[in-house]
Amino acid sequence: MSFAARHIGPSAAEQRRMLEAVGYASLDALMDAAIPEVIRWHDGLDLPPAATEEEALAELRALAARNTVAVSMIGLGYHGTHTPAVIRRNVLENPAWYTAYTPYQPEISQGRLEALLNFQTMVSDLTGLTTANASMLDEGTAAAEAMTLARRASRSRSQVYVVDADALPQTISVIRTRAEPLGITVRVVDLDAGPLPDELFGLHLQYPGASGAVRDHAALVGAAHEAGALVTVAADLLALTLLRPPGEIGADIAAGTTQRFGVPMGFGGPHAGYLVVRAGLERMLPGRLVGVSRDADGARAYRLALQTREQHIRREKATSNICTAQVLLAVMASMYAVYHGPAGLRAIASRVADRAATLAAGLRAGGVGLAADGFFDTVTALVPGRAREVVGAAAARGVNLRLVSDDAVGISCDETTTPAHLEAVWSAFGVPPVDPVAATVPLPRESGYLTHPVFDSHHSETAMLRYLRRLADKDYALDRGMIPLGSCTMKLNATTEMEPVTWPEFADLHPFAPAAQVAGYTALISQLEGWLAEITGYDAVSVQPNAGSQGELAGLLAIRAYHLSRGDTGRDVCLIPSSAHGTNAASAVMAGMRVVVVACDADGNVDLADLDRRIADVGDALAAVMVTYPSTHGVYETGIASLCAKVHDAGGQVYVDGANLNALVGYAKPGRFGELAAGGLSGADVSHLNLHKTFCIPHGGGGPGVGPVAVRAHLAPFLPSAGGPGLVSAAPHGSAGILPIPWAYLRMMGPDGLTRATGVAVLAANYVATRLREHYPVLYAGNKGLVAHECILDLRPITKATGVTVDDVAKRLIDYGFHAPTMSFPVAGTLMVEPTESEDLAELDRFCEAMIAIRAEIASVGSWGGDNPLANAPHTAGMVTADEWTHPYPRSVAAYPPGVDREAKYWPPVRRIDGAFGDRNLVCACPPVDAYA
Amino acid sequence: MSFAARHIGPSAAEQRRMLEAVGYASLDALMDAAIPEVIRWHDGLDLPPAATEEEALAELRALAARNTVAVSMIGLGYHGTHTPAVIRRNVLENPAWYTAYTPYQPEISQGRLEALLNFQTMVSDLTGLTTANASMLDEGTAAAEAMTLARRASRSRSQVYVVDADALPQTISVIRTRAEPLGITVRVVDLDAGPLPDELFGLHLQYPGASGAVRDHAALVGAAHEAGALVTVAADLLALTLLRPPGEIGADIAAGTTQRFGVPMGFGGPHAGYLVVRAGLERMLPGRLVGVSRDADGARAYRLALQTREQHIRREKATSNICTAQVLLAVMASMYAVYHGPAGLRAIASRVADRAATLAAGLRAGGVGLAADGFFDTVTALVPGRAREVVGAAAARGVNLRLVSDDAVGISCDETTTPAHLEAVWSAFGVPPVDPVAATVPLPRESGYLTHPVFDSHHSETAMLRYLRRLADKDYALDRGMIPLGSCTMKLNATTEMEPVTWPEFADLHPFAPAAQVAGYTALISQLEGWLAEITGYDAVSVQPNAGSQGELAGLLAIRAYHLSRGDTGRDVCLIPSSAHGTNAASAVMAGMRVVVVACDADGNVDLADLDRRIADVGDALAAVMVTYPSTHGVYETGIASLCAKVHDAGGQVYVDGANLNALVGYAKPGRFGELAAGGLSGADVSHLNLHKTFCIPHGGGGPGVGPVAVRAHLAPFLPSAGGPGLVSAAPHGSAGILPIPWAYLRMMGPDGLTRATGVAVLAANYVATRLREHYPVLYAGNKGLVAHECILDLRPITKATGVTVDDVAKRLIDYGFHAPTMSFPVAGTLMVEPTESEDLAELDRFCEAMIAIRAEIASVGSWGGDNPLANAPHTAGMVTADEWTHPYPRSVAAYPPGVDREAKYWPPVRRIDGAFGDRNLVCACPPVDAYA
Repeated sequence: MSFAARHIGPSAAEQRRMLEAVGYASLDALMDAAIPEVIRWHDGLDLPPAATEEEALAELRALAARNTVAVSMIGLGYHGTHTPAVIRRNVLENPAWYTAYTPYQPEISQGRLEALLNFQTMVSDLTGLTTANASMLDEGTAAAEAMTLARRASRSRSQVYVVDADALPQTISVIRTRAEPLGITVRVVDLDAGPLPDELFGLHLQYPGASGAVRDHAALVGAAHEAGALVTVAADLLALTLLRPPGEIGADIAAGTTQRFGVPMGFGGPHAGYLVVRAGLERMLPGRLVGVSRDADGARAYRLALQTREQHIRREKATSNICTAQVLLAVMASMYAVYHGPAGLRAIASRVADRAATLAAGLRAGGVGLAADGFFDTVTALVPGRAREVVGAAAARGVNLRLVSDDAVGISCDETTTPAHLEAVWSAFGVPPVDPVAATVPLPRESGYLTHPVFDSHHSETAMLRYLRRLADKDYALDRGMIPLGSCTMKLNATTEMEPVTWPEFADLHPFAPAAQVAGYTALISQLEGWLAEITGYDAVSVQPNAGSQGELAGLLAIRAYHLSRGDTGRDVCLIPSSAHGTNAASAVMAGMRVVVVACDADGNVDLADLDRRIADVGDALAAVMVTYPSTHGVYETGIASLCAKVHDAGGQVYVDGANLNALVGYAKPGRFGELAAGGLSGADVSHLNLHKTFCIPHGGGGPGVGPVAVRAHLAPFLPSAGGPGLVSAAPHGSAGILPIPWAYLRMMGPDGLTRATGVAVLAANYVATRLREHYPVLYAGNKGLVAHECILDLRPITKATGVTVDDVAKRLIDYGFHAPTMSFPVAGTLMVEPTESEDLAELDRFCEAMIAIRAEIASVGSWGGDNPLANAPHTAGMVTADEWTHPYPRSVAAYPPGVDREAKYWPPVRRIDGAFGDRNLVCACPPVDAYA
Repeated sequence: MSFAARHIGPSAAEQRRMLEAVGYASLDALMDAAIPEVIRWHDGLDLPPAATEEEALAELRALAARNTVAVSMIGLGYHGTHTPAVIRRNVLENPAWYTAYTPYQPEISQGRLEALLNFQTMVSDLTGLTTANASMLDEGTAAAEAMTLARRASRSRSQVYVVDADALPQTISVIRTRAEPLGITVRVVDLDAGPLPDELFGLHLQYPGASGAVRDHAALVGAAHEAGALVTVAADLLALTLLRPPGEIGADIAAGTTQRFGVPMGFGGPHAGYLVVRAGLERMLPGRLVGVSRDADGARAYRLALQTREQHIRREKATSNICTAQVLLAVMASMYAVYHGPAGLRAIASRVADRAATLAAGLRAGGVGLAADGFFDTVTALVPGRAREVVGAAAARGVNLRLVSDDAVGISCDETTTPAHLEAVWSAFGVPPVDPVAATVPLPRESGYLTHPVFDSHHSETAMLRYLRRLADKDYALDRGMIPLGSCTMKLNATTEMEPVTWPEFADLHPFAPAAQVAGYTALISQLEGWLAEITGYDAVSVQPNAGSQGELAGLLAIRAYHLSRGDTGRDVCLIPSSAHGTNAASAVMAGMRVVVVACDADGNVDLADLDRRIADVGDALAAVMVTYPSTHGVYETGIASLCAKVHDAGGQVYVDGANLNALVGYAKPGRFGELAAGGLSGADVSHLNLHKTFCIPHGGGGPGVGPVAVRAHLAPFLPSAGGPGLVSAAPHGSAGILPIPWAYLRMMGPDGLTRATGVAVLAANYVATRLREHYPVLYAGNKGLVAHECILDLRPITKATGVTVDDVAKRLIDYGFHAPTMSFPVAGTLMVEPTESEDLAELDRFCEAMIAIRAEIASVGSWGGDNPLANAPHTAGMVTADEWTHPYPRSVAAYPPGVDREAKYWPPVRRIDGAFGDRNLVCACPPVDAYA
């Protein structure tokens, strides 16, 4: 059986039955009817024909063999680390963790929420600050978010942001990228050389510095505070197990990465960045924040806190566009801390420090000068004129060092450094070995950390394994059943796609390893970018953005840079339809644009007349229009080609958000929209894609994602790069370590499989719409009453008539064994269902029947009153087995609604969660044990 | 933290608390008190010092790199196969499957029981016979068991067993090994050359033959039946998707392997063998048999059927010693059939047959003669005088062929064969390629198979993943909690030990691959055998036996052969204490010995006075004594050294069953027992070990196991081999594919870690005994009231007083979230608890507290009467959430006994199972769907 037949849920016979229900004779006939001819692509995809799973693995093994796993002592925020095998197998390789969705339905996400609370506790304990969020995309973007947070929070009116010259180079680059469109002036300053500038709103310090130097920043922090500035310390968490933490010198913010806590380097990512703030700033934190609250029984329960800060609510008022986090990697890093505990982490750090001290002693004894006396794991050796020679000699011995300049070489020790590695380095420098010495770190830490029992309870592998299983068992992921989340495309993440991710040849490469060592990656990335360009109809693709939000930013920055390059300096308006994702508006603001909203008509389509008015209004200020296609209303709008033409005619660029690309692949190409129609209408200019949607990177409980940006040729020079608008993520190829996933998907599906997947995704959505329409109104439809790849069920009349809300239906679906569809997006009071092509007919029917049964329950609500199974959902086993039962409906209705497998029911661990309570009583770290009583 | 500290559950601080409870100042002091000085080994273990997990993995990668993964076309029952990645990751690499125990507690084993029922259905459907068991160790032992089954069932008085000369050579060898001690004469006959012998009790046919020839055996079957013989057909299941099955020509038995159903070759194993019989023979089947029964609510439930056939009950009356099966591999093979379904399997087989037909066409066109015209996947090419040259030429092209003789070459096609492989073969033969041809198989199959819906419901990867998760979620394995099974040593199966098993360099080697391609395996096996010899104090070790039962047989055959080699032809009595495992007696019978039972004294020790009497009684007939040490009573008997001496003095050999070696490693060596004591008492002569107990091969739900046999130098010539008493398993190194597990365990623990593990295992057992003694009498104890690594809780007085049985306690433990201890072995009415070193103090305490709480419940039984939580245990969620509750105790007592985590409770899917009902109404295949209504 072909891989496509494994990936696509419904068999050929099932597809026929579904087509019959929808009323079409074939998939082609359905797609002909659904997709406007003006954008329809008829020429197929010029991709290699489908490989079998075994062939694809063999090709990936061949690519992997072209990478060289050398010993990395390059440092710069990427370090060798031992991933505990129990964590690798039971988190990173376990579908119960990697196929989970973002914990927006907290009742069925308590396991990963607990893991993330551990993560936050770990970060806040180690940094000595108060409130950490549940991960950032990487250290570079975390530092950039710290800058904008400082800008919001500072009482200074300065636009100057001062950055430590000893900061990581890639961090400086990402900060510059983000600063420029916002009018912030970045000043990179050698802080050893003199006092701070007089005017600044923020100060970014690196601790230890990129050179390895550990400086006492206390005085600088004081000076910055005097100027009204906020101070961010980009700190290495492993170093903080030994060094005085930022919180103890008054830092306001700390940012960094948790990569070296057991997460493989992966040629640059994905890893979990962190961001943590002192008390008083927590409500300004971007990103997701896990907090403690209580459920309907008053039991402790976790959920995402302070969601009103987030971009999907605040839209153009948002101050960050961050959406996807790095949950899977944050879970790994937190479990690394849980497994080692504070004493174990300190022992690892001490061993690393001893290695560095020994290394330094040998260099000094051999007459090599060092740039700094105080260091943790990294030394910069001064070898005037000889640096290239030394780096080359080390490479010949299998060790990569950092070429700082012609005269200086950086060497970082890490958990994996052995005495043999030190000997290789000494040999490369031409100095003799010395005996090991014990490190004396500067600024030693005196405060404790990780004192919560969770960090001292799971040190045996048996205990760790069970903790991981117990948490995973609390959660609902794709390995249990359907997750019909509109706009999120929760489809199969095939095992064959996942396996290569943990091969050492892909996992253990440093992003700045020499080009000769990464030929396999280079080839894979180049092929992948080419295939994505072919699928989207664009001319160039960059995989650098490590989330969809970063892809949006990169695309808008390309548009901005393009206009500026033509001297078109006044173009700063981005038109965005009212139906757009909140990130769109937030990204536009971050790209220095003003957002002007375009109305939608009664059918949910962009109102082209309103568009005309807005274009006329903004005139020469028009920079771009940003639309999602098919729209977030789940409809193929027929006006899209015309929209492109209108904006182009007015001098603007067209940005098509690729979030819904799963409805297009093989049938239409955004870069060629309308091109083939009469009149030769032009296509879009730029899109970002979400590889964690259409291209099978698993959601990981809320990340990793990858958000490549694809552009037409005229924008290619403005793709993210040091030469263009700068880097949007820290590593050259973003989250390169997971790119084998989409590569394998494309390779195994082939052009025909990809096209068929699109057709079946649209068929499935229309099948669900057809079956449910008589029970719930379907809000929008396009050609011939067809939806695209998702459909919106309108609960508003039902809510009005019965009081039953979308929340009630969503929570009741848990009792039926389902993850809820997307709630109240893009239209409040509705549910948006996206079944994807991977669900077979049995599962689609099970879902439809659950929704129909819930509709019948809604009809009975009158007889039950407020105490009904919808209002009380979800029902825990504890509730339904209570000695006393006072509800007007029987226990069996609560526990086993129709269609539930009695022998394999998923029981949520908590009842409905009171989010507001937790927001009023904000707790974002592990609560003390007595609080568990 | 060292690996030993990860493997050993209690931390140093916890060990101190446990020692305090038991009353000893240190582990050394405890062990000094517990182990008789006469056997105590004080000189440490001469093993390499502990490697870290990363170092061990690096060494294993280096060993793996010394193996060459060539294209295997050798055949002979071992074929290339594509393991579906979803099955590899979610079964073979998933602790929920591989850490499970044999499903003796069926209420918490419904998932693997369903998978095994699918396996049985698959085997019986494909062979056209009625009742299959739940797997055999390999094809060779399955065929040998078929022979003894035929001997039992045949009405012929002949002792002649006729074997097809075209049977697999290793099968013939295993049959010969088994036949000789039983007085069976094996006659290997060219069945094309003439009629059957007149007298025979059984006939073994290979279908297709080792040569590839597909013969119509119908007439032979008729002739054999006329002679009163039973007919076994060793059949290839993939071939049977296209060929007329054995059941349709009247075969009585079929045997074989399911390896090519997705189970990697693994250099010979482990794979699931199969055995299936026609109606009327099912109650004579050896091994484990899954059957359908019902639970206390009358719901369908699965459990092991007809257990009274088994060796642990029948002891010296047993007709097979098989105990461990190959459950994990049987699950994989069954899931392969579930994933592909009948049409998918047929398509695979057709593709294989087409390849073979094309291969043959090319050879014929090139002038190469073939040995047979009718074949499925294998052809034997006739190249007089050129066979070695052709095989060498193919090897040079990366393809291994079978050297049949100087004049003939065997070539097998399989699922992985590609056109490129055929071209390499043609080239090796010096013939030009031809175009593909479609096969026309002889004896085409007309009947259907795999018609049950389970084989047509899980063809998408999403559906398959969920089916695997749903089944796994029904079961309780080590990843949920403690499995304190006495005598089974359910300890950590570390991830680092497991990971190499699925590396291609270990997984994808044929057992008969050229020596130059398997240097890594050879080195690994040689090191492992050496380390095991050092640990046990013997001189030579063979890992050939692929289960403990086969190790026992091999050890006893070595003793038999030793006596015979000295002309001592009358020594055929094996003394076995009454406390022994049932397998011991069964193995002795299979080795041609008579069993004489030696009594135990009131303390549970071997009664040395009775031993003296028995030795005197049997005189020169004494072959051996077979004892377990520490005994199955969980006690270090002080008389062991003296026992050895007495038996040696009488001319017998001493067999120490290594089942309980986890209580000895580092502290005593069976091969050196008593050697250092005054008087120089001699040690034992032979032991088998259970690598799936002491040495961390996971139990896999009832296999795989590995049972190496270890002997002193005088027995070394009689280890299993073609030159010695013959093969005991089909592959030269048995289940070689999982030997990286014990290798890694020994490598990472090192001598100190291994010794500490033993001490902590004994400490844990004594801690449990100390805590529970006042609640339940501890039946036996040795020196100073100490137990060894396990303790027996005597329920008999409680049962007498209250009516509560061991069964009730065992099932109630499920409600508390535990797997039961061993029930009624070795003493009826008791529970035997073996905590192992891997359980931390928190889990040990949780268990003790559950047992104490249950004791309190027992005390309340009087108030509840027969309708009590013990008698009704286990309680399903369905029962406790029922609308009506009529029991005298509250629901909360049923659902959440003290100590249960309310958010993460394990719910058994069925209530207590009525085994007798199922035995009366035997159903051993998937029931029809309407039966599910």
